[in-house]
Amino acid sequence: MENFENLLKKYAHLLIKRGLNVQKGQILLINAEVEQVVFTRLLVAEAYAQGAGHVMVQWTDQAIEKEELLHAEEKFLTEIPDYVIARMNYQIENRVSRLALRSIDPDGLAGVPGDRMAMVVKAASQALAPLREATQSNKVSWLVAAAAGQAWAEKVFPDLAPEAALEALWDQIFKTCRVYEADPIQAWIDHEERLESKAAILNAEQFTALHYQAPGTDLVLGLPENHHWESAGSRNEAGDYFLANMPTEEVFSAPDYRRADGYVTSTKPLSYNGTIIEGIKVHFQDGQITQVEASRGQETLEKLVFENRGARSLGEVALVPHQSPISQSGIIFYNTLFDENASNHLAIGSAYAFSVEGGTEMTVEERQEAGLNQSDVHVDFMIGSGEMDIDGIRPDGSRVPIFRQGEWAI
Amino acid sequence: MENFENLLKKYAHLLIKRGLNVQKGQILLINAEVEQVVFTRLLVAEAYAQGAGHVMVQWTDQAIEKEELLHAEEKFLTEIPDYVIARMNYQIENRVSRLALRSIDPDGLAGVPGDRMAMVVKAASQALAPLREATQSNKVSWLVAAAAGQAWAEKVFPDLAPEAALEALWDQIFKTCRVYEADPIQAWIDHEERLESKAAILNAEQFTALHYQAPGTDLVLGLPENHHWESAGSRNEAGDYFLANMPTEEVFSAPDYRRADGYVTSTKPLSYNGTIIEGIKVHFQDGQITQVEASRGQETLEKLVFENRGARSLGEVALVPHQSPISQSGIIFYNTLFDENASNHLAIGSAYAFSVEGGTEMTVEERQEAGLNQSDVHVDFMIGSGEMDIDGIRPDGSRVPIFRQGEWAI
Repeated sequence: MENFENLLKKYAHLLIKRGLNVQKGQILLINAEVEQVVFTRLLVAEAYAQGAGHVMVQWTDQAIEKEELLHAEEKFLTEIPDYVIARMNYQIENRVSRLALRSIDPDGLAGVPGDRMAMVVKAASQALAPLREATQSNKVSWLVAAAAGQAWAEKVFPDLAPEAALEALWDQIFKTCRVYEADPIQAWIDHEERLESKAAILNAEQFTALHYQAPGTDLVLGLPENHHWESAGSRNEAGDYFLANMPTEEVFSAPDYRRADGYVTSTKPLSYNGTIIEGIKVHFQDGQITQVEASRGQETLEKLVFENRGARSLGEVALVPHQSPISQSGIIFYNTLFDENASNHLAIGSAYAFSVEGGTEMTVEERQEAGLNQSDVHVDFMIGSGEMDIDGIRPDGSRVPIFRQGEWAI
Repeated sequence: MENFENLLKKYAHLLIKRGLNVQKGQILLINAEVEQVVFTRLLVAEAYAQGAGHVMVQWTDQAIEKEELLHAEEKFLTEIPDYVIARMNYQIENRVSRLALRSIDPDGLAGVPGDRMAMVVKAASQALAPLREATQSNKVSWLVAAAAGQAWAEKVFPDLAPEAALEALWDQIFKTCRVYEADPIQAWIDHEERLESKAAILNAEQFTALHYQAPGTDLVLGLPENHHWESAGSRNEAGDYFLANMPTEEVFSAPDYRRADGYVTSTKPLSYNGTIIEGIKVHFQDGQITQVEASRGQETLEKLVFENRGARSLGEVALVPHQSPISQSGIIFYNTLFDENASNHLAIGSAYAFSVEGGTEMTVEERQEAGLNQSDVHVDFMIGSGEMDIDGIRPDGSRVPIFRQGEWAI
């Protein structure tokens, strides 16, 4: 790729400056695969250039993680040592902002027995609940972004040679994150405004429910009172603006976890903890999942839904037009960050506190009372297509078209 | 390199099986640079194959460490967070064995101001004193070994192309660690026995002092009562045999830190915390360093000696013949693990508890009383040459030649 080094630098600058919006003196934690050392060095340098007080990197390697999942004694997978909790508390107390750099092989943990995997996910997610809680209430700035990993690239572009596949994936990342623009930051500001205008209409309407209709889908989803639709930008506790996802094309809120009835069928595969799940169909009654099916990864899906606290209800509802730039590419990324931004989606599990007005100031009990689901997991799955219609239902029962044939109708 | 993958696997097997001697159910911590991901994966797989209960990897990247040293706010360099202490305590309490994989650029931190560097080293070494103490008393098995890093290789072989330099360094590592042997483990057993026979003679003699003579060197070094010469193999608290260094060619003990008089001149450069120090001359009186000089890195050397607890006295005395295989290669590795095994050397700073009989059972005060130096640092410097004579002095004042012209004389 011509000019690759310069594009990487532009991308690092964009993530640190517009995405995380790193403040002077702030502590930043970057989670990255060791494979991403070159790009991570650029992020670290950029963060210090923006005035960060300290930048820490927590490295992982998926191949070693797989060895651990396969061979470590069970107690080491389920008992979380004190120092891990102490490290989490340090992050919470010191308001450490976080950049999660996603680059793993979506299939890289295939072969790990489902029960081992589920055990680990459950133990970690329970132990780290306070950190998830702090993140989902936007106590700190956080950003999920992508870097092209070799195995991931080969999965997305199976017909290309390894080097070309890697280049093609970087190209997609740069495209969808507007890195090719002369001024990527201005391009993002414009994009954020477009998304926010849709959110503003939905916030003013305050629909009591949404009705989804498409082949394989007929679902009525209740929305909480005083729900809030959010788009690209958020504010943390200190009032600093940040973007939680790059790329992002979604306008999202939380459903009332007690009100979902009908069924919904997924339209894209989902990579969950290194296993691909496809052909998902989920049935709901009174907000609860009563039945799940999948053409691939059914065991993993069942464990997710039935063996985690709060995983039988929904925590997020997100609207993305079928003609989003990511969707238009026609590429299946096997990575939620991209695939969720190509499609209307729902999330199994926990809701973001800011999805109801004043939610970040509420206790956990008050949030639950307000209709926000509490869970140890948060897993998006994609349901949008060019055949999807969505109506907003007003308190008086009248209906307003929100989506028609997969596109915004408002 | 032909057969490189297979050689790497043999090397990983040797380190885990004969070096660390990993036991069933044991926890192992590997410290590695992210650059060494390929070899580290082999080590992890080998450790699980030997029955390890859990293998953890703490990754570092020298380039990011340098950014941190240059740009982080001072408080983040000097205040060690609670979770780091908690992690250390976890390692001590759970008797976590450790493999330190050395591969960094010996010059990679050049440009970091000496006072920033010294501040960090001091804070970390004070906070982590209990771990150093546990290691130096062999509470756990530990091993320092090498992997070829790109920048290090180019420093050692400046006239070779990058790829050839890397290959040449791996070749030296494989040679000096006997990886080319048909049965590397048996080759090590034979080597360990040869070294142990020298240690046995010295242990039986119980010299009261050593007298070093060479150009630039005239030093009398007291030895503690009941001192113990150790060679390649050690035993941890649980009685498991392990090798603390691979390669190793030395027979070593501790001097009495209160008895050193004269002067000594280094014969090889020393890479200390990413800075090269050369042409060292050190003067002693009553065990204390009174004056230091260096033709390069003098400021770093002065900070080391005069700004760290216990760094004005010696903690290790090691005997290595001038014709050791590493010395014969004629290569300067700019890496203590190699250069110390090419040359007689001394260490500024702390002594190993096992250097006097029963030392690992003593309190810190008792060890000090026995003549073992206590310090926050332990830094080897090389003094051997083909012109070095060493006499052992018996309690009655008579002398026994130990080294003549740089070679064993006993």
